[in-house]
Order: sequence, then C-alpha cells, then structure tokens
Amino acid sequence: MLRYWTAGESHGKALVTVVDGFPCGLEIDVATIDRELLRRQGGYGRGGRQRIEADRVEILSGTWRLLTLGSPIAMQIVNRDAKLERLDDLDQPRPGHADLTGAIKHLGSIRGVLERASARETAARVAAGALARQLLSAFGIDLLGYVVELGGLPIPVPPGSLADHRSIRDASAVYGLNVEQDGAVKARIDDAGRRGDTLGGIVEVRVEGLPIGLGTHAQWDRKLDGRLAQAVMAVQAIKGVEIGLGFEAARRPGSAVHDPIRYDRSSSHLPHLGYLRPSNHAGGLEGGITNGQPLVLRAAMKPISTLAARLPSVNMATKESEPAAYERSDICAVPAASVVVENVVAFEIARAWTEKFGNDSIAEAQARYDQYLSLSRQR
Amino acid sequence: MLRYWTAGESHGKALVTVVDGFPCGLEIDVATIDRELLRRQGGYGRGGRQRIEADRVEILSGTWRLLTLGSPIAMQIVNRDAKLERLDDLDQPRPGHADLTGAIKHLGSIRGVLERASARETAARVAAGALARQLLSAFGIDLLGYVVELGGLPIPVPPGSLADHRSIRDASAVYGLNVEQDGAVKARIDDAGRRGDTLGGIVEVRVEGLPIGLGTHAQWDRKLDGRLAQAVMAVQAIKGVEIGLGFEAARRPGSAVHDPIRYDRSSSHLPHLGYLRPSNHAGGLEGGITNGQPLVLRAAMKPISTLAARLPSVNMATKESEPAAYERSDICAVPAASVVVENVVAFEIARAWTEKFGNDSIAEAQARYDQYLSLSRQR
Amino acid sequence: MLRYWTAGESHGKALVTVVDGFPCGLEIDVATIDRELLRRQGGYGRGGRQRIEADRVEILSGTWRLLTLGSPIAMQIVNRDAKLERLDDLDQPRPGHADLTGAIKHLGSIRGVLERASARETAARVAAGALARQLLSAFGIDLLGYVVELGGLPIPVPPGSLADHRSIRDASAVYGLNVEQDGAVKARIDDAGRRGDTLGGIVEVRVEGLPIGLGTHAQWDRKLDGRLAQAVMAVQAIKGVEIGLGFEAARRPGSAVHDPIRYDRSSSHLPHLGYLRPSNHAGGLEGGITNGQPLVLRAAMKPISTLAARLPSVNMATKESEPAAYERSDICAVPAASVVVENVVAFEIARAWTEKFGNDSIAEAQARYDQYLSLSRQR
Amino acid sequence: MLRYWTAGESHGKALVTVVDGFPCGLEIDVATIDRELLRRQGGYGRGGRQRIEADRVEILSGTWRLLTLGSPIAMQIVNRDAKLERLDDLDQPRPGHADLTGAIKHLGSIRGVLERASARETAARVAAGALARQLLSAFGIDLLGYVVELGGLPIPVPPGSLADHRSIRDASAVYGLNVEQDGAVKARIDDAGRRGDTLGGIVEVRVEGLPIGLGTHAQWDRKLDGRLAQAVMAVQAIKGVEIGLGFEAARRPGSAVHDPIRYDRSSSHLPHLGYLRPSNHAGGLEGGITNGQPLVLRAAMKPISTLAARLPSVNMATKESEPAAYERSDICAVPAASVVVENVVAFEIARAWTEKFGNDSIAEAQARYDQYLSLSRQR
Repeated sequence: MLRYWTAGESHGKALVTVVDGFPCGLEIDVATIDRELLRRQGGYGRGGRQRIEADRVEILSGTWRLLTLGSPIAMQIVNRDAKLERLDDLDQPRPGHADLTGAIKHLGSIRGVLERASARETAARVAAGALARQLLSAFGIDLLGYVVELGGLPIPVPPGSLADHRSIRDASAVYGLNVEQDGAVKARIDDAGRRGDTLGGIVEVRVEGLPIGLGTHAQWDRKLDGRLAQAVMAVQAIKGVEIGLGFEAARRPGSAVHDPIRYDRSSSHLPHLGYLRPSNHAGGLEGGITNGQPLVLRAAMKPISTLAARLPSVNMATKESEPAAYERSDICAVPAASVVVENVVAFEIARAWTEKFGNDSIAEAQARYDQYLSLSRQR
Repeated sequence: MLRYWTAGESHGKALVTVVDGFPCGLEIDVATIDRELLRRQGGYGRGGRQRIEADRVEILSGTWRLLTLGSPIAMQIVNRDAKLERLDDLDQPRPGHADLTGAIKHLGSIRGVLERASARETAARVAAGALARQLLSAFGIDLLGYVVELGGLPIPVPPGSLADHRSIRDASAVYGLNVEQDGAVKARIDDAGRRGDTLGGIVEVRVEGLPIGLGTHAQWDRKLDGRLAQAVMAVQAIKGVEIGLGFEAARRPGSAVHDPIRYDRSSSHLPHLGYLRPSNHAGGLEGGITNGQPLVLRAAMKPISTLAARLPSVNMATKESEPAAYERSDICAVPAASVVVENVVAFEIARAWTEKFGNDSIAEAQARYDQYLSLSRQR
Repeated sequence: MLRYWTAGESHGKALVTVVDGFPCGLEIDVATIDRELLRRQGGYGRGGRQRIEADRVEILSGTWRLLTLGSPIAMQIVNRDAKLERLDDLDQPRPGHADLTGAIKHLGSIRGVLERASARETAARVAAGALARQLLSAFGIDLLGYVVELGGLPIPVPPGSLADHRSIRDASAVYGLNVEQDGAVKARIDDAGRRGDTLGGIVEVRVEGLPIGLGTHAQWDRKLDGRLAQAVMAVQAIKGVEIGLGFEAARRPGSAVHDPIRYDRSSSHLPHLGYLRPSNHAGGLEGGITNGQPLVLRAAMKPISTLAARLPSVNMATKESEPAAYERSDICAVPAASVVVENVVAFEIARAWTEKFGNDSIAEAQARYDQYLSLSRQR
Repeated sequence: MLRYWTAGESHGKALVTVVDGFPCGLEIDVATIDRELLRRQGGYGRGGRQRIEADRVEILSGTWRLLTLGSPIAMQIVNRDAKLERLDDLDQPRPGHADLTGAIKHLGSIRGVLERASARETAARVAAGALARQLLSAFGIDLLGYVVELGGLPIPVPPGSLADHRSIRDASAVYGLNVEQDGAVKARIDDAGRRGDTLGGIVEVRVEGLPIGLGTHAQWDRKLDGRLAQAVMAVQAIKGVEIGLGFEAARRPGSAVHDPIRYDRSSSHLPHLGYLRPSNHAGGLEGGITNGQPLVLRAAMKPISTLAARLPSVNMATKESEPAAYERSDICAVPAASVVVENVVAFEIARAWTEKFGNDSIAEAQARYDQYLSLSRQR
C-alpha cells in the first residue's frame, strides 16, 4: 500500500513529506519534483510569499544513487521565511479559514492552527504527487491539470493531445488552455486585487494512458472515485469535486450520459484493450474502476479566505466585533490549485496502480503489467 | 475509531453491515433503521425489485436488551429475491456500470461484478448510517436529505426548520421540498420511462446542531470535508460532491463567499458557542472542521445505467457489437439516493463525533460534550 | 489489502466474520471451514458449551456457485445457545477476564463485556483463517498447529513431514504430536478439573511451502513478524509469542543462532529458490520477511480464567469481598487454542501473500507467482 | 488516532520520524528525546558507529515556542556517517539479516535492503517514543526498560520503585538492575567479542501509573496486548514477546496465575480506583485492556546477525559458497534494545491513551482524565 503524510507549518523550519510503500528500482528525477514545486509557486495573482520562497525538494531517504530502494522516501522543503518562533498570535479569526474552528477545537492559539492549515502545506503534497507521477510515467500514464474557469470567466479547453495542452498551459500566465484569454483573466485578477478582494475558480485534471481495472467496486472505502474525491476535497479551499460530466450528468437523460461500448481489434494492444467509447461522459471511471478512457476530474476552489479588505470578525478574547486579521496572502491561487489537484490525483492513481501491480519493484511491476494486458485481452 | 464495512450481493442471501467502535450504552431503535430502509426503497420511479423486497434489519450482535455494548454491531438484511445461484452470466456489459471494468479487472464474470456493484448494496450503508444517526440524535444533531433537482428540473428549498422540511419531504413522492411540484417531476419520470430512458438529479443533505470542532485541519486523510467527499462519491452513481456554495463559490469574489463572524452572547450556550454567521456559504466546514453552522452538502447522481432502450455494447466473448444486457431496474433512483447520501453523511459525522468525544460510552461522551462546551466557551 | 473483522457475542444470535479483499475465482470448500470449526470445539478438557454448539459456517456473500467473486465474504455461525437476552448481569468480576477492566472502561455491565471478550469469538476468527488457508493451499502453502506443552508437560515434536504430523495430531485427544503421551496429559487435565482448577499450555504453528519475500523490512507496521505477533497476542488468553528459537535465541551466541546460507542448484525451482539452511532457528523470518524456510511460531496460553474453585473478587456494587462469578467454562482449551492460532497465522500469511501477489484474481496471482519465481531466480 | 512512521537509511542523510495526531498544548522537552537517543547509543558492547554518531533530534514541525500545535511533529536525526552514496553493494547475504530475503523480494541490491533494515532505524522509533512518553508523564504514567538477561546470564530485578530502578539502571554499564553483576556481564560480552561472536538477551519494560481502561476487548486489531506485541516484535532482532508471566503462565494452574481482586477504599482516588491485586501475573492487561496494575512486558533479542567470525553464505551472483559479508557492527546491543522496546511501548501506550482521552488538547485531556476517574469510581 502506497501512502503518504505531510508535516510542517507555513513559517516553520521545513515542510516534510513521507511516502511509504514506493516500489524499488525507479530512477527519480528530482528536477521533475522541483518543476512541479515551481509551477505551484507561480501563476498570476500570487503574493509576496512566492517571491521569498524558491521551493526545492531535498530527498532525505529512500534512494541510493537516484534509484528508489522500496523504503520510505522522506522529502524536505526548507522554508526560507522560517519566522514562526518570532510570529505572534492573532485574535480575530479570518472567515473561511480554520482560525476559529481550529482554535476552539484545540483550545489553543489561532497561530498554531493557521500555520498548519495554510495552503503552503500543499507544497508537501505536490512533492508526493510529483514523485508518484514518475512511477505512472514509467508505465505510459501521463496527466495534466489546468484552469477551466477563473473568477467566473470560463476558459475553454481546445481539442488536442495532452502534450499539446501541456505546451499551451505552460505558456499561459493563468495555467489555462487559451492563452489569448490570459489578458482578460489577468485583468479580472488585477481588478479584484484593487478592491482588496480575492478570486476562485475551477481546475480540471486529465489522466491518460490508464489501463482498465484500477480501483474497485467491492468496498466503499476502496473505490477509486471516493478516494480521488477525498484527496481533492481535502486540498485547502476546494469546495466541490466532480468526475466526468459531474453535476451536468444529473441533468441529462441516461441515453445522453452513458458511454456506448465499441470494440476495435486494431487497438486491442493498448491499455484500453480495444474497448473504445465514442464519448467519455463517465470521466474514465465506471463502478469505481478505471475503464481505459481518460480520467477527467474537476474541482472548485473558493476565493482565498484572507482579504486585504478585511471581513467582519470578532476578537476572540474580548468577543467584540473587529475586522479579521490579515496575513500576507495572494489574490488568486487557482493556477496553483491546478498544480496541487493534478498532483494529489497523481498520487491516488499511483496508489491504485500499485494495489493492482504491486509495490515491490519496478521490474516486477513491468512484467506484471504486460502479463495483465495479455491475460485481460483473453478475458 | 468508528468504522464500517458492508458485504452482500444484490441477489445473494443477505446484505451484511458490520459497525465497529460504536459506543456502549445507547438504546437502539430498530424501527428507525427500518424506516430509513423503507424510505430508500421508495420514491417515485423505482422498479419491480422494490415491490419484492421489504427490507428489515436484523441486529445480530453488539446489543443486549436494546442497549449497545461497545462491541461490533452486525446487521443483516435478508434478500427475498435471493436467486443468485440460479442466475446466469451476461455477455454484454452495460455502459455506466462496473460490468466491463470489473470483469476485466478480476478476469471474471460480469455477473460476479454487477451483483456487488449494484445499488442494492446501499441498503447496507443506510443501515450503518441509520445506526449512527441515533448517536447523533442523542446529542442534538439532526440531519435531512432531500432532492433539489431531478431530470434537470430544480426543486426549490423553501425557508423552514429541519422539522418543517422533514414533514414536507416525507409527504413528497419524489422526496423534494416542494410538494406542489411533485406532479411535474413525476411526469418527467414517466416520460423518461416511456422512452426506456432514465433520469438523474441532485440531492442535498443538511446537518444541524453540530458543535464547533469536528474534523481536523492537521493531516490530509483526516479532514472532514475529504472524508465526506469520499463517502458520498463512493455511493453508486454519484459523480459530483460539493459543500456549501460548492462550485458556485468558484464564481464569486471572496467578499461574497466568506461568512462574516459575529458573536452573540445570548446564544453562547448553544453548540456554536455564540459565533454566528449571517450567511452559511461555507456549508458548515472551514479548514476541514465544523464551524457550528449547518453542514450542507450536495451530490450529483447520474441517471441509472441500466436502460430499457438498450445502449450499444459489445459481446465480450465474440467481440461483436450487441445491445447491452438488461437487468430489471428503476427509471429514477434520485429520491433513494437522497436517503443513501443522508445516511452515509450521518456515519461520517458520527465518526468525527466519536473521534472528538470518544467511543467508549454514551455516559462518558455526554459528560465530555458538556465539558467541551464549557471549556471552549472560555477559549 | 486482505482484512477481516468479527462481530458477535458468546450467547448472541450469531458470530459474524467479514473478510474483505479476497481474490476472485477461488473455489471455496465450506467443509474445510467446518472442519476447522469442529476441531476448535474439540480437544480434551472442553466443557458443556461444546456439547450444545455444533458450529457450522454459512457463507452469506462473496461467492457464486462456490467461486469467490472478489467481493466481501460474510460468514455466519449461528449460536444454538443464543440466550443472551435472558441472561443477567454479574457483580463479581472474574480475575483474568475483561470483566473488571471492560466494565469500568465502558461504564457498563460485566455481562456486556464478557459476552464479547469470551473465547467463543475465536470461532469467527477460525472461519476467517480457514478461508484464507484455502488460498494458501492453492499455492502449495500448508500449515499445522499443535500443542507442544500442556499444564507444564512438554509434548515432543517428532521428526516428520507436515502431513505426518497432521495425521498424528488428528489422532491425538490433546492435539499433540505424541499420541502415547495423551493419557498422561488427560490425567493432568482431569486432575485440574477435580480441583476446580484450569490449565494452560504452549502451541506451535508451522507453515511450509512459503516463497521468499512475503512481508517487508521497510516500515514497522508492515513487518510480517510484527503482524503475526499482533494477530496471535490478540487471541484470547495468549500471553506470549515467539518465532523460531524465540526466547532461546536470547541465550545462545550468534554463531549458534543464525542459519548459514547454502545454495542447492537442484532445488532452485522450489519456492526457496535453492537457498537452503541447515538449521531454521530464525523460524522462517529474517528482517520481517519470509526466507523460504518453514515459518515456526509458538504461543503461550494462560489457563482459563474462569475457575470452578472461585478466586477472590469484589462485588463491584457493594465493594465487598466476594468470590468471583462463575460462568460455565472449560478446564483446558489449549488444543482449541492451537486451532485458533493456526488459523489466525493462516490469515496473516494470506494477507502478506496477497500484498505480494495481488488480490484481484486467482488466475492472475497464479501467473504472477510463476513469474516471480522466475524473476527472483535470476536475481 | 496517534500514529507514526519512520524513514531513513543507516548511512543516508538523516533519519526522519513523523508523529501524527499528537495533542495540542504539551511543552516538549527536546533534552528528554536526546537523552533517550544517547542511551540507545550506549551500553557495553556497542561498536565503532556509536563513536561516530552523537544523535540529536531536531524538531522540524508541529511546535511553536516549544508547545505542540496538534499538527504533525516531524523530527530529524542527521547522520554524521552519511556515506551511502559512496558505499558499494554486497554479494554475500548475512544470515539473520534481511539481506537475502529483501534483495529477492525487491529484485534489488543487498545494500538497498540492509541500509533500511539496519537497527540504526530504531533511533527514529526511539524519538517517537521519547515524544510520546512526555505525554504520558503529564498524566503520571512512567515507564522503564532494563536488561534482565544477557548472553544467558540472568540479571535479577530487585524490589524497589520505578525511580529506584531508574537510578540503578542508569548506573549500570549493561542497563541491568544489579550493578554488582556488571563485571560478569561485561566479561561475557568481551569473551564473545574475542571469538568474533555476538550476544543476545532479554529486556523488560514496566509501565506504572496506568488507569484502568486503556485498550479494548472488542475487536482483534484494537486490542492493546496485540498492538504492543506488534510494536515490539517489529523491532529489529526481537524474536519473542511476553506479557506478565508470559510463557511461565502456560505452566502453572489457573489458581496460581490469575490475580485475585481486592478493593481498598483508601486508594480509590488513584488511577486503579482502589482495585488492588496481591499479584500481577497478568502484567497489567486483562482482556486486552489495562487493569490499573503495572504493565510488564519482556522481549527476547537474538544476538546481532553480523559476526566478525563470518558465517557460511553464498555469493548471490555466482551462487558459490563464500563467507557472509561483514559490515561494522556491535558485539551486543541488548542494552540498546531495552531503550528501543521501552520507547515503542511508550508510543503504544500513548496511542491507547489518546484513543481513550482524545488527542485534541492537553487541557481537554486533563479535564477528561479527572472526569473519567470520577465517573468510573461510581461504576
């Protein structure tokens, strides 16, 4: 079982990720992880913190001469702005954050909660996903996250391959797939910034190259759709998750939702075994199991909860009305969220992948993957 | 830790639920469970199976003279239509079901997969939730699920208390909160039925009476929003989950999303400790932790995947194009889904509740709950 | 991940076992499970309850025409003596049982605790193990449990194959491997019975046919030795667990403990790949991983805690000294414990086995097993 | 739920421990952790590595101004001898280690396995336990580990309090409770060293101040005795675990095993609520639950598997007989094992403690502890 946990506060010494159960024998490319970390820090609308930090991962364990050992992989991202010990507590919880709820739950400080609840923690999750995607990549599975709506402005997804889309996204200041629209999106962010306001949006992740058979229908806590939903909804500021048509599926009749099954002998050597679908409304998952089509998932991010134009709050000590505290923050982190969601999805896919093909060694997994395609072709 | 698993096939001998970690000393009302099971079987649009079954739960363990013992509670729902051994396999997987994906994954039969993947399994999950809600009820927490959209037709939610809404819902043939609209909704279902088609919809669950502090912000796999999303997305046919404003939150600026914090001394004895919010866009969760406001969650259900007007499929043996197999099914199960989602939410809330207040005994939990309100009031 | 839970009280309606994650496509022999259940009920020294019950398992789910489906397998053992609702509470906790500790922990009744803590629950665990061993059997792994000491009397283990030993054990009234000694052992049990006393003993389990590589060294909670120790120590009345030489290993120098490694090309096709050991002091586990030698584990069972010659206790209501309550019990259940330990070991081995070879289908696991032997032979 | 994982290779950059679910508001004393780490490095019989390393923990997360935050606590022990990248692979697996089993399992190198399987990893586990014991300490629970047998030489435990015993142990070169015997024990170690041999032994841990009611009888995988056995058996080189009388309990009649229950009103304010036992053969656990008596557990450590007088082995590349590889090692690490076992026991007790009293905050746990003693006194 592939699993991970993170540790670390926003202004603490470091963020730490421990990945347990990663197979032996994969050559890790640290630059791939750093590239994802850098992308997470970017996107139009980020604030001053991103200019201070320049996240780099250090692998502390689990590799020898760049090859994974099958033992736990600990990764560390050192915080440059590690000023936690010098920071003070706050008295006015910020609506939308864990400030109020966490301080009461733990009978503790707001500082102690916000430092952990901060979206800075997502860097540690990105590190886990950026490791996991290298496993997927070794087996021809690729994925991409991008912004499909920002501040109410839809950003259309043009036709094209994942590689095409990656090029476009990498050229976009807002991580969308329509660079010509970047100006309009940036203007909307600037406008929100001028008002002391913040913006949210919707991100989409597409995973390609998946075989049929990851996940299960057999027990509720092992279904892949449920696990993906947990991983994504547990990302800071995410308030909605949908797969395939998602909420739109609720509005159409079944005849316009379910993807007919065709068989194409000439593509039966591919991971989908030749079972083609003229549409992909299911988003690649049927019965909690991958169906060989691209997995498509969207997540809704609320606007950042820290507003320069402070929202009404209460001083928890005096119980008097006071504006919410303000901690340096971004105007919009939807591009960053597209990176985070992409990478937590990568991890869950890798988890399901190792449950199917094992996590002892890449050599064995490779042989099993071929074997499975062969056996399942005969099914 | 409160946890549960289910077992059982659609036409097997019985559905079984085992709930582990339930506190000692709660008087269980079996009729409450049976009432939820009956509701799950109802709602306009169900098919013949519901006329055969009349689900009743039998508690096999974990109670003595109706009081829970703190030991695992096993529940059984016997299938009347227990004809699995006489049923044959299918050759044409039904699009939208686990037929294709599961048969390939397990290198096995379609029958073996569909029998478990069937939504009949949700009866076992409802039993778990209907047990859990009795724990919540003992601490003033109540919840209600209802249909807010069906076949593309929105069903508005009128103002009113949970009790008011329960009365309305219980009087509605489609489990909505606007009985006058029932006729129109039923007509839409009838129309779909005539076309051999099926309908989906959107359900909403509202939980009231929650204290501040259930869930956590501290680790991704323990956040309450993530767990709720997993539990709900893992329900058969659910393709989207959103909390509070959900996807709408992505479209508004932060100033129109985050719920200002006020303090009202006169209500500080209540579970929300006097921390009031003029709006509840967060849907009761901030930072993965309950904030004392009603928890509001919506789920999108796709139309039922089994269509009388059979969809194009493939004979897995011959690989020739053939219409999908047809097994007796419903036209619309959105009302039932509102019951299922309501009850899986109840279970996750109860899980978070016992993590906060313990699962050894109701007597101790009661004392702790009072103590927590007192301690947190002083925070 | 293969996992299981049990539910059920000693005098409740039924014992229930749910096994989740069992591979698809194994033909289950119910008689094998019943035979283990019957053996658990036997052995010299058992009391009246065993004459009332005649445990038979009923499989409620997870199979179709005797083949496993990959879905959860729920099993039920109905209690004949299902008189729980008519039984009263006790006031005088029995030393050695959970009576005192459980009643205080749960602020509840002694009855509510003892009904679950009773060793009758081990029947449900035997069912899980008796299922799991059929999976092992399909891959040439066999195991045997037997009594090696009873009431202080050692019962020697003669040389011989597992099959030889099974024949001897099945012929022994005390499940030992030296039938000629049965009379002396029975006399010791009879003598204890006459004094109103009880006896404990030591059981040994040997597992043969294991490949190299089950378990892991990589993380503490996934090591196979640790998991075996948990499973065995969690069996009622077990107070000690040792693997291989166990405590004796602590007394010898390293040169007399560690098993030299030899290589025998002519046996390299066997699961141990030709890596032979002239001794097996490690008991088949090195670094938390199987080494291809027989896995040997011993467990110490304390005497049954319910004595006819009642031990001093206290009336919990009055706090006055009173003799402990007496509930019908056995004089000696060491033979039964050998069955229970054997079967919980079988389950943990099967769990490690499916972690290595997958739990989707037997057909795939078979292909993988062959493949692994081939790949690891080239290592 | 309190949980932890470790990462790190013997000669990698660092050992890392992540502790998740630790309550908010405890003041951590880093010196306490360093003291345990130092003790782990000590004891007569250690080799050169301990002269290179001087383990110090650095807390990377989870605290603010020394107070825990309720968020994950990551700890790092930097390796001075971090030469992994310069080390070569081995060809001759050392009997007793994971060298052979791990290399085959992972189809990988021996180096990659031994670096993680090495007992150096226990430093990371000691860090987890040394943190956990500070939680226990805040609630009057103390524990001590010491050596009771080494190389076959028993070291008697004199009467005395835990504090008395700690003084003696801290003065002993072999961490025993009979300093006068140290010379004889050291001579035995020296003698083994001269022969190129190694020694094992038996360690004992005693935990005092425990309330009644930690652990449970209700489900096999939550029983405290099982969890302790797992944690201890999963420590490198441990081959046996016993609680209370352990294996000796198997040899006595029940009347000489089970601890009579007495009630002493004058001590009813203590954690044991006045329920006294003239003996403690159960070792503080009945039915998987603490009974208010000292918890006593013993573990058998085999001699170190790396012998200067190399054992017969095989070159895995050539399959020719060759002596086992030799990596710098100790002659005897039983004193160190007493520290490791003591600290993994501390962690499991703390885990059970937080399951009973919660892990949100120390302030709340303190109030609950008092409340529980009050409520359970009335039981």
